[in-house]
Amino acid sequence: MVCWVMSRGFCRVSSVLCRFSSVFRGCASAGSVRFGSGCQERLSRPLLSGTVDRFGGVTVRDFPPDISEEEFAELLRGSLHQWRSERRVAVWLHVPISLSRLAAAAAHHGFSFHHARGDVCVLSLWAASGEDRTPAFATHQVGVAGAVVDESNRKVLVVQDRNKTTNAWKFPGGLSDLGENIGETAVREVLEETGIRSEFRSLLSIRQQHEHPGAFGMSDLYLICRLSPLSYDIDFCTQECVRCEWIDLTELAKTSETTPITSRVARLLEYGLEKGFHNIDLTMEQLPAVYSGLFYQLYHRRLPETI
Amino acid sequence: MVCWVMSRGFCRVSSVLCRFSSVFRGCASAGSVRFGSGCQERLSRPLLSGTVDRFGGVTVRDFPPDISEEEFAELLRGSLHQWRSERRVAVWLHVPISLSRLAAAAAHHGFSFHHARGDVCVLSLWAASGEDRTPAFATHQVGVAGAVVDESNRKVLVVQDRNKTTNAWKFPGGLSDLGENIGETAVREVLEETGIRSEFRSLLSIRQQHEHPGAFGMSDLYLICRLSPLSYDIDFCTQECVRCEWIDLTELAKTSETTPITSRVARLLEYGLEKGFHNIDLTMEQLPAVYSGLFYQLYHRRLPETI
Repeated sequence: MVCWVMSRGFCRVSSVLCRFSSVFRGCASAGSVRFGSGCQERLSRPLLSGTVDRFGGVTVRDFPPDISEEEFAELLRGSLHQWRSERRVAVWLHVPISLSRLAAAAAHHGFSFHHARGDVCVLSLWAASGEDRTPAFATHQVGVAGAVVDESNRKVLVVQDRNKTTNAWKFPGGLSDLGENIGETAVREVLEETGIRSEFRSLLSIRQQHEHPGAFGMSDLYLICRLSPLSYDIDFCTQECVRCEWIDLTELAKTSETTPITSRVARLLEYGLEKGFHNIDLTMEQLPAVYSGLFYQLYHRRLPETI
Repeated sequence: MVCWVMSRGFCRVSSVLCRFSSVFRGCASAGSVRFGSGCQERLSRPLLSGTVDRFGGVTVRDFPPDISEEEFAELLRGSLHQWRSERRVAVWLHVPISLSRLAAAAAHHGFSFHHARGDVCVLSLWAASGEDRTPAFATHQVGVAGAVVDESNRKVLVVQDRNKTTNAWKFPGGLSDLGENIGETAVREVLEETGIRSEFRSLLSIRQQHEHPGAFGMSDLYLICRLSPLSYDIDFCTQECVRCEWIDLTELAKTSETTPITSRVARLLEYGLEKGFHNIDLTMEQLPAVYSGLFYQLYHRRLPETI
């Protein structure tokens, strides 16, 4: 991976270079920008304002609200000329949905959609010569399932999904919400689907699948956690499941009415019950992140001194 | 998770209901659609055409190329009325960048950006009453590092990044490309950064971090793999690294000049060298995916019968 991407730290460090009021010199009036060729010839050309990041990219977030596609294409042409002369390597346009027409104008200059969410789309252009080093957007959705193990009777909580063509036993689970920890997703999904309250114990298994159905052309990471039950009376969601049961682990490990991943995790859990869960667990440790001030979660086999 | 999301299988199953040529009844001419109020009053209102999926959503991919924002807002209004009467639960608009102006028109009816890539943005609207069950787009970028262990001398390959403020030893790595397997990323990144050829052995550790710098507001999964060297002569990328060395594992486990995750993985690797790597590894198994005909990769502790 090239430096720009490798650093994994794309952040703005410089202050705003200039604002529209000062940028649209001569031809700007409140709320709109007019492009008279005579005006432009007499005065310096108007330019978009942006912030420069430590990688040499420039980000534009402010646009004249009434500008047409054609006017914006012209404004962008001049700005790109300027940024290239300043050796900016990339240009990012954060376009509000109300000005979505500007994306078409930007496409004429080689911009494409980098990502979009809610009411903003972000377009990018690699402005330097050589290899395009634009860092990519998120590529994976994350799904989490919870294997709730009742150690007192060697049973585990399983469901049969309503929407699946073959009704196979599997662990309850679903997609992580943005910002949700793996263990939180498992506990939430188990409660929503089965009515069982539980707590996170460990991570057991990870599946990576590309071109996953339902992932909008992206990839999928599916993680299975080990959970301990805090309640035992099933009250399952009939919208999502046709069946929900506490099933004997040995039965689940042997049955053909399940998925390959569920079967393998059942065998792991059997082994964990017999020899100790430290043989199968990835334990979680929470550590402070250097940059954000938030915490991250680290999963791996228990460290040797604690085994 | 609600059913619609839980199923993890959002795909189109019905054929195209109707095409523009038949949809824009009366008022359509080749390549453009005109909206004369008299014309619309005399004839049935034009509607957008779309495909219906098995979850009750409708997806529109074809738009009149010359339609204005105002005309599209009106066309969408009538179409939404029709779809709601048909109890469609969600509407998806796949808008080409050349028609990006339509996004602004759609926003007037409550649409927002779901995602965008390249030359298409996708807008969505939850059209049913009750909770918004629109499945989310990818939430995580995936970074992979490779710990290349030379078992003959207990050394491991480490680098110091050029772009980091503190120069700490870490394992070479970077972001996965879309569609790239975890082990492939590790091997590629190690080669690009250090010049060392290697092969994938196992997965050792997973870190989840939200609001990760450089992830455009999304989350990050960072995985560390164990690799075996296939070459030994370092030829590191000076654009990315300031230093690259084979370092003694015990030294790496003890030094303060490293990251918490690298330190922990070094201790795991020490333990693996002493007691066998099966004590620390998540092994990989490749299995056929039911839906796509592709393969997925499953990682977990070695199954009991093989230990």
